[in-house]
Amino acid sequence: MTVSAPQSTPSTNRPVIQTLHWEGGLDGHLRLIDQTRLPLELVEIECRNVETLWAAIRQLQIRGAPAIGIAAAYGVCLGLQPVLDADETTFFLQLEKTAAHLASSRPTAVNLFWALDRMKRAAAKLRGKCSPRQLAAALLAEANAIWEADRAMCRAIGQHGAVLLAEGQGVRTHCNAGALVTAEYGTALAPVFAAHESGKQLHVYVDETRPLLQGARLTAWELQQRGIDATLICDSMAAQVMREGRIQAVMVGADRIAANGDTANKIGTYGVALLAAAHEIPFYVVAPSSTFDLSLTSGEKIPIEQRPGEEITHGFGRQTAPDGIKVYNPAFDVTPAKLIHGIVCEHGIIPPVNSERISAMLSCKG
Amino acid sequence: MTVSAPQSTPSTNRPVIQTLHWEGGLDGHLRLIDQTRLPLELVEIECRNVETLWAAIRQLQIRGAPAIGIAAAYGVCLGLQPVLDADETTFFLQLEKTAAHLASSRPTAVNLFWALDRMKRAAAKLRGKCSPRQLAAALLAEANAIWEADRAMCRAIGQHGAVLLAEGQGVRTHCNAGALVTAEYGTALAPVFAAHESGKQLHVYVDETRPLLQGARLTAWELQQRGIDATLICDSMAAQVMREGRIQAVMVGADRIAANGDTANKIGTYGVALLAAAHEIPFYVVAPSSTFDLSLTSGEKIPIEQRPGEEITHGFGRQTAPDGIKVYNPAFDVTPAKLIHGIVCEHGIIPPVNSERISAMLSCKG
Repeated sequence: MTVSAPQSTPSTNRPVIQTLHWEGGLDGHLRLIDQTRLPLELVEIECRNVETLWAAIRQLQIRGAPAIGIAAAYGVCLGLQPVLDADETTFFLQLEKTAAHLASSRPTAVNLFWALDRMKRAAAKLRGKCSPRQLAAALLAEANAIWEADRAMCRAIGQHGAVLLAEGQGVRTHCNAGALVTAEYGTALAPVFAAHESGKQLHVYVDETRPLLQGARLTAWELQQRGIDATLICDSMAAQVMREGRIQAVMVGADRIAANGDTANKIGTYGVALLAAAHEIPFYVVAPSSTFDLSLTSGEKIPIEQRPGEEITHGFGRQTAPDGIKVYNPAFDVTPAKLIHGIVCEHGIIPPVNSERISAMLSCKG
Repeated sequence: MTVSAPQSTPSTNRPVIQTLHWEGGLDGHLRLIDQTRLPLELVEIECRNVETLWAAIRQLQIRGAPAIGIAAAYGVCLGLQPVLDADETTFFLQLEKTAAHLASSRPTAVNLFWALDRMKRAAAKLRGKCSPRQLAAALLAEANAIWEADRAMCRAIGQHGAVLLAEGQGVRTHCNAGALVTAEYGTALAPVFAAHESGKQLHVYVDETRPLLQGARLTAWELQQRGIDATLICDSMAAQVMREGRIQAVMVGADRIAANGDTANKIGTYGVALLAAAHEIPFYVVAPSSTFDLSLTSGEKIPIEQRPGEEITHGFGRQTAPDGIKVYNPAFDVTPAKLIHGIVCEHGIIPPVNSERISAMLSCKG
């Protein structure tokens, strides 16, 4: 394994994994970990223009809704660097052009559009009130604020969730919802990190997460980086590991949570929830409040994306199934609320999971 | 994909998949499908001496307890070809030497020892009563009998199990217990083959079976060869596929069945059984009666083999997990009898599964 040290200068109080960060001032640049080279190499990409960042998002070198949103916000700052001394009209044209281009990098990423809109709104508020250079400074501050808010949110999720984990427990995860999908701390892994930082010894069972192996490639690596005791298993070993008494809690992320608590997450989550129920192990969903989609009354309304069969038949460098075989490759499944012991978000923990409790938590904090 | 046609001459009534077969008379040879080249290439290995066969068993070019046993019996015949015209002492020395050598090819394969013992007993019975050439002919007949008995047993399993499958049903399998582990018809897949031959349209959901992907590589290929509608999924997709109403029966093989019906089988089987129970889908174990180990009162007594972590971390031709990560890789799990709706063997179906029914079925037929 070749480990290239990150090329940026370590700052004091630097987090263990800094998924992406801005370096320098208005003429600075964005640095991000190239996730396609993990877990074998830790390499940072230096984005000094929008094109490099666009390609990084497109090629999944950076992934995860929050991280993509933050990257796009900084991408706007990169796009404006050539017009800092131009006139206002040119500046706003360049802003529109940059945002439109970045939006095309991952057309289904909601956080991407949200972040770009937020940047455009921030610029619009200041239009006519200051110079392009001052506008650009305000937009860099806005991007930094998005980055900081994500860090704070992840920390809050971690603090709330950590109380669910006791000294010496075994925790089962699924997929990767760690530092690499956010600014630095993660969502579903945040309680594990927070509990570990508070001195609790945990043991995490990481499943591979076929077909794309985010667990094996990314979660295992993140836990290792933080010195957290972790063991890799195949997805199919979950029941056996539970039966052997190795797991006391399951924590998974979420892609979308309906108003009643039904949760769409990476394929395999629903199965893990059923196995946890069969072994009387508490199953928690850990996700930011932005994951709730209250327009959906239940999980039945969540569409399930189908992905290419080649992810399964040609996954990692060689063909592992016969030519012409039919493949079924749903990206997500939906875990019904009744299997979820609690939903942890930045505002706190929602147990039991039902529409009333969700609505109450979101309305009083939102 | 390169498909080399098998080099042997097709006979009338030739099965779809002939895992291994003897070609010719006393001076003939053994042909077997090289399973390490599936599913990309269908190539037969021509074993004209013991060494070639020994290497084929060792390198898993042929695998599965029944198939290995049959191969070893024919291996004895190969080993005796140089001494057909020698004296009796030389002949028996060569028999002992050949059997001892073949026994070392897979030291944990029970069927291997069973078949070699059966060959030696057959020879011992005739010692002093006929010439080495006549002895060799009797031993070839004995090997053919082992091969034929396996075929008949698999057909019987198929006939018994097929009644459990109705027209249009979806069947979930796990791992590979098809034709490739036997002479030609398989154990856990036999009911699917038999139902298909009787004109029932079935749809089989084949899971990959991590870490060694026997489902993706072998079961998918076998079903395709027979023209049975099959869809490949990842192990983690089982629950979702069940929830969508695509599965009406689960059929799995067994490595060992305790006296009370608890069943050890490929890792992941226990999880599938739990998921089937949660969706009220019947779960069947399909295996020859030789799989029962009545000396074990329950599954708790079955030791679980641990296998190398590299099977998980380096499975697909490239490394998919960080260096130094701990790995837990149990080869089997144990499904408790209470989750099993029936055990299908060559004598019939045992439902409900309990010690009394198992004992009754085995004692009246055994």
